[in-house]
Amino acid sequence: MGRIICCGLGPGDPDLMSVRADREVRAATHVAYFRKKGRPGQARTIVEGMLAPDVREYPMEYPVTTELAVGSEEYARLLARFHDEWADRLAELARETDVVVLCEGDPFFYGSFMHMWRRLAADFPVEVVPGVTGMSGCWTRANLPITWGNDTLAVLPGTLDEGQLVERLRLTDAAVIMKVGRNLGKVRRAVEAAGLLSRAIYVERGTMDDERILPLAQCCEPVGAYFAMVLIPGEGRRL
Amino acid sequence: MGRIICCGLGPGDPDLMSVRADREVRAATHVAYFRKKGRPGQARTIVEGMLAPDVREYPMEYPVTTELAVGSEEYARLLARFHDEWADRLAELARETDVVVLCEGDPFFYGSFMHMWRRLAADFPVEVVPGVTGMSGCWTRANLPITWGNDTLAVLPGTLDEGQLVERLRLTDAAVIMKVGRNLGKVRRAVEAAGLLSRAIYVERGTMDDERILPLAQCCEPVGAYFAMVLIPGEGRRL
Repeated sequence: MGRIICCGLGPGDPDLMSVRADREVRAATHVAYFRKKGRPGQARTIVEGMLAPDVREYPMEYPVTTELAVGSEEYARLLARFHDEWADRLAELARETDVVVLCEGDPFFYGSFMHMWRRLAADFPVEVVPGVTGMSGCWTRANLPITWGNDTLAVLPGTLDEGQLVERLRLTDAAVIMKVGRNLGKVRRAVEAAGLLSRAIYVERGTMDDERILPLAQCCEPVGAYFAMVLIPGEGRRL
Repeated sequence: MGRIICCGLGPGDPDLMSVRADREVRAATHVAYFRKKGRPGQARTIVEGMLAPDVREYPMEYPVTTELAVGSEEYARLLARFHDEWADRLAELARETDVVVLCEGDPFFYGSFMHMWRRLAADFPVEVVPGVTGMSGCWTRANLPITWGNDTLAVLPGTLDEGQLVERLRLTDAAVIMKVGRNLGKVRRAVEAAGLLSRAIYVERGTMDDERILPLAQCCEPVGAYFAMVLIPGEGRRL
């Protein structure tokens, strides 16, 4: 009986992978990773050049659901079936061998692997290796210490509606707004309404080769990049 | 002219250090780290056995301020002077050689190094290597995926007053309460008042040899450990 080992790979730069993840990835005989159909996949891209020559790869390709609303029942049904099928395949593989599942960032922080974990962990030895989160990578690259002293931090998805974003931003010292992409215009308005525009930094593809970091106030495009987030540092006690 | 390189060391297990931090620590000729007087120091403990035999060590020992209230002006003055003095010493060293500053967790997430960084970064090449946060280490060890789908996450210090804790907990999907230690009783009451006690997990010294993980509801001692936090996972969409 093998193990399923999910390795958090960090924000993008392979040098930020943990020592353990680096070791597991290089030693892997079977690797699986999520990706969109037709894309190389962020997790797979991070480990480029690290895999053994005879490794067996299992790209777990999301069903194409662009025509379905993300909140719809049909979308949920498709995704659930996709997760069921891959959980079965991973379980089958793990009866024979170790399988390393590659995940960008930290697996238990908004990670797709969580959907596998909840199907498998009761029956299989599933090990999770935590990673540096995308947001840690971004605030470090942006030279932006995020929380000082007793600052509170709110991590908010850009999918919240504008009023909720403003309310949550008003009740926190520091904030990270994820999933900015198509929500960029709304996020900008909410940050401005909360009086935080002068402190807000927009980061796209942090720690990757083509990263882009600028004040949110100067970021006027209608749609942000897929891996974009907005960072608002706290102003807690400087000693 | 040398560089100042602050390495985030992760939550405690040296295997969770990044590949880059591991390399910098092993190659270091001069290392500095914060610690309390008379203690080995968490950062220094993580790298035990990794340092070069002839490395020069600079323990930055906090002035003993137990008799002063943390919020007092006198405390602030003492800490500021301590940070000024060490920023000067690091600057002096960095004129001659590279200096590696060791920090547990992720340096820009509540890290003590931030107080050095704001004094030095304008004049010196200061590099920061992000690390796995203590909270990522804890939720992984606790087998607790923390945020699902569009969950919001609030990171709250246990030093907030009880009413503020309840208010913030009511306005979030997932939460991490840090600095639980002496605030354990208050944190427990607040979590219970917010209706979240059944989901809350107490984690002490996560990823370290003597870690302790149990439901907060079963954690009845009046004072928690210094490295303790409470985790409340979100209930966002499972697909």
